[in-house]
Amino acid sequence: MTHERSRGMLIVYTGNGKGKTTAALGMVFRALGRQKAVAVVQFIKGKWKTGEERFARTLPQLEFLVMGRGFTWESEDLALDKQAAAEAWSKGREMILGGQYFAVVLDELTHAVQQGFVELSDVLQTLRDRPVDVNVVITGRGAPAELVEMADLVTEMQCVKHPFDAGLLAQAGIDY
Amino acid sequence: MTHERSRGMLIVYTGNGKGKTTAALGMVFRALGRQKAVAVVQFIKGKWKTGEERFARTLPQLEFLVMGRGFTWESEDLALDKQAAAEAWSKGREMILGGQYFAVVLDELTHAVQQGFVELSDVLQTLRDRPVDVNVVITGRGAPAELVEMADLVTEMQCVKHPFDAGLLAQAGIDY
Repeated sequence: MTHERSRGMLIVYTGNGKGKTTAALGMVFRALGRQKAVAVVQFIKGKWKTGEERFARTLPQLEFLVMGRGFTWESEDLALDKQAAAEAWSKGREMILGGQYFAVVLDELTHAVQQGFVELSDVLQTLRDRPVDVNVVITGRGAPAELVEMADLVTEMQCVKHPFDAGLLAQAGIDY
Repeated sequence: MTHERSRGMLIVYTGNGKGKTTAALGMVFRALGRQKAVAVVQFIKGKWKTGEERFARTLPQLEFLVMGRGFTWESEDLALDKQAAAEAWSKGREMILGGQYFAVVLDELTHAVQQGFVELSDVLQTLRDRPVDVNVVITGRGAPAELVEMADLVTEMQCVKHPFDAGLLAQAGIDY
């Protein structure tokens, strides 16, 4: 642990288990301790302001954008969803290519790709074109094979036990 | 997501993949956004101050204790390691039972249990005895079956691709 990597990483947290977004937030926590500039773009927006968004608002050094519109299976207007995802990606893309951030988190991007709201080829090209020291973290279920192929670190969060299966409801401060 | 759980959760992040401690930190991030009191006890201490420790020092509302002595396979004095782990557990136990925290994170506790530094039966009893609304997060490889059995949420972080395998070195702000 004495040497730093000379290039940024592409990190993918995928799988059906809980902990993907949470791990991305933990990486932000760590990077902030190193005085690094970090940006987060959330492609999924719930009905309520999340704990992470609330905490992020207290941290001026963190760029935190909640731009998505929620999961498509809850949606009433797919055209609006698509537009929101496209705008989120446009912003994320700009932050990745700009090079001013140590790390850019694209939370739930895989969902937007699966829905066809964001082109995978565009994501891959942007990752290839990024400044060499920019770290990118992508979260979400079902990460495409090409993304896994390109990534330096891929962890699959496997669900061993899920509280919702046991009838336990989501809790503020833990789940969101 | 409209109702809160009426009782605290036992969350276990285990497996060989990266993202376990990171996910625990992300949960802290989220809980802080909800103005909750949170404590973290790290059972493993590296040679350098981590990014998470540095950031935690800027957050007066977060109790962050680094009490362990490092991984045993790097150790030169197992008796000191054992003592450090026992003290860390004693502190963690007190914080869990005290009921003043919304969540207590025991980072790399499984390692201390595997080494016989902390008794599993004591951990399980403490978890059973805890005030009903206290959330506990335990991280580390090889979570014991009894702990998994008791837990409400268990995610196994599976390593799909690890940067160290590709010869990439750890990077401050990402890995620690």
